[in-house]
Amino acid sequence: MKVVALAGGVGAGKFLRGLVRVVPPQHVTVVVNTGDDLTLHGLRICPDLDSVTYWLAELADRRRGWGRVGDSFRALEELRWLGGEAWFSLGDLDLATHLTRTQWLQQGRTLSEVTARLCSAFGVTARVLPMTDDVVTTRIDAVDEEGHHLDLHFQEYWVGRRARDGVKGIRYDGAGQARPAAGVAEAVTAADVVVFCPSNPVVSIRPILEVAGIARAIRERRGPAVGVSPIIAGAPVAGMADRLMPATGLEVSAFGAASAYRGLLTCWVIDERDAALAPRIERDLEMRVAVTDTLMTDDEAAERVARVALDLAAG
Amino acid sequence: MKVVALAGGVGAGKFLRGLVRVVPPQHVTVVVNTGDDLTLHGLRICPDLDSVTYWLAELADRRRGWGRVGDSFRALEELRWLGGEAWFSLGDLDLATHLTRTQWLQQGRTLSEVTARLCSAFGVTARVLPMTDDVVTTRIDAVDEEGHHLDLHFQEYWVGRRARDGVKGIRYDGAGQARPAAGVAEAVTAADVVVFCPSNPVVSIRPILEVAGIARAIRERRGPAVGVSPIIAGAPVAGMADRLMPATGLEVSAFGAASAYRGLLTCWVIDERDAALAPRIERDLEMRVAVTDTLMTDDEAAERVARVALDLAAG
Repeated sequence: MKVVALAGGVGAGKFLRGLVRVVPPQHVTVVVNTGDDLTLHGLRICPDLDSVTYWLAELADRRRGWGRVGDSFRALEELRWLGGEAWFSLGDLDLATHLTRTQWLQQGRTLSEVTARLCSAFGVTARVLPMTDDVVTTRIDAVDEEGHHLDLHFQEYWVGRRARDGVKGIRYDGAGQARPAAGVAEAVTAADVVVFCPSNPVVSIRPILEVAGIARAIRERRGPAVGVSPIIAGAPVAGMADRLMPATGLEVSAFGAASAYRGLLTCWVIDERDAALAPRIERDLEMRVAVTDTLMTDDEAAERVARVALDLAAG
Repeated sequence: MKVVALAGGVGAGKFLRGLVRVVPPQHVTVVVNTGDDLTLHGLRICPDLDSVTYWLAELADRRRGWGRVGDSFRALEELRWLGGEAWFSLGDLDLATHLTRTQWLQQGRTLSEVTARLCSAFGVTARVLPMTDDVVTTRIDAVDEEGHHLDLHFQEYWVGRRARDGVKGIRYDGAGQARPAAGVAEAVTAADVVVFCPSNPVVSIRPILEVAGIARAIRERRGPAVGVSPIIAGAPVAGMADRLMPATGLEVSAFGAASAYRGLLTCWVIDERDAALAPRIERDLEMRVAVTDTLMTDDEAAERVARVALDLAAG
């Protein structure tokens, strides 16, 4: 069975740890959001690609969620002391990834090629693809406490300003002109199952779908497509999706998240606490629904969620 | 008394530790070679500016000579393991300097401004100026063991290939078009004494002199100019100047190093082991010579060398 998973960062990473226990990793292609990518201090940083890679390599810091386990922050602390911009966390080991990626990109390699080399070095056997080799940037139209309009890179909004601004809109700059990375559309078409990881629907999965051709490839293929809700009991499991979903007209609920994928998904996995939403999702969104405990506290729990999702898709 | 010192990296750093014990650091302007600067992994790295800054800040690793004391190399070791280019050593603390500099440069600040901010953060009270805010690159026309011609960045030749290639010539790309950084020519003109630190004459001091206007400002000023020989008993105290000097027609000796500065220096300090060269230097190069122990094993030794140099210049 060949599986294609659309992925953001941490939530996807946790889920993918389970998925590769159900499906041989060689049969899994992960298409990762790059709308959050940024250039900082001259380095090209791809937070979601890094999270997915570190989680699949068993190198993620499970307690923090982001970054590498056992990392130190000597460079970052020194940079802060020097008066540099220190709002984006960069571990010393994590820096090696950014330095290596930046150099390889500057040598003319594509982000896909760089990602494949990094995954190979990290021993990741699943195929990890950026959604595109072109630059797509998720930007937030925001309003600060004093009513001033701000046009923020997603990371500035999210990490730099800790999502404290009002959100008026979300743009995916460059997505309309971006082409899917080599292999993305082909993998979607050839997949037995497409899975949307439990990632933020508006800033993790949506940017992938905005890249010309990816949503169409999903829509036109035969076979099931299943998603796992990132929202439990009206709140995101992690992150601050509740600040962003309303700006795009989405209700902050397992129903609202599913509604972002109407016409793309045939199946939707929700948490036990949201069981009451199942009939509405089945009726209004025409998705088959499975109800389970979706909190992925460890790899065993993630495996169980992945199995429920794949069983639902197969059923 | 106002002093301007022309400086390369480690040898200059050691000497400057002594100079600022003799002259108040507020009266010292250091003009630093930037011909060795490189962009690696997206970061702008200025090895000589960093060495001078770390030495003046008492943060240099005295044992190694280069880099910061107490630094670690987690990012570099990881980068090497990932298959990245790891030939240029980057400590975790040292990385903070490169990250901060790169970001400030990308924000539109000049290298002079960035250097001033870094020196301020590091508590360096001497004025440290890059020779220019423009890009000048020292390149080596080399021939490898198999007779192939190579056009190498100085750092590739020096650090990357450990000076193993034959040297046919040395170029200072961009020097002819580069302007001295703001304040350099003025400081030279206003200086009571100009000092050439014991740095490599062809790849540390020469690039500074190649920047249009600097050599002329030195030549046209009144007052003494003194240098300290980086060559003792026919060999460089550190580094591999003996591989480079012959390519420019310079004898590898305290005489040969002085001859690179004919018409610019009025005084030259040599080591006791080279005392026999004094008459030839005085006669052929028209420099007054002082003979002393020039090995700067600690700050006290460096202070003594600096005092000998300034006394010679004053006498």
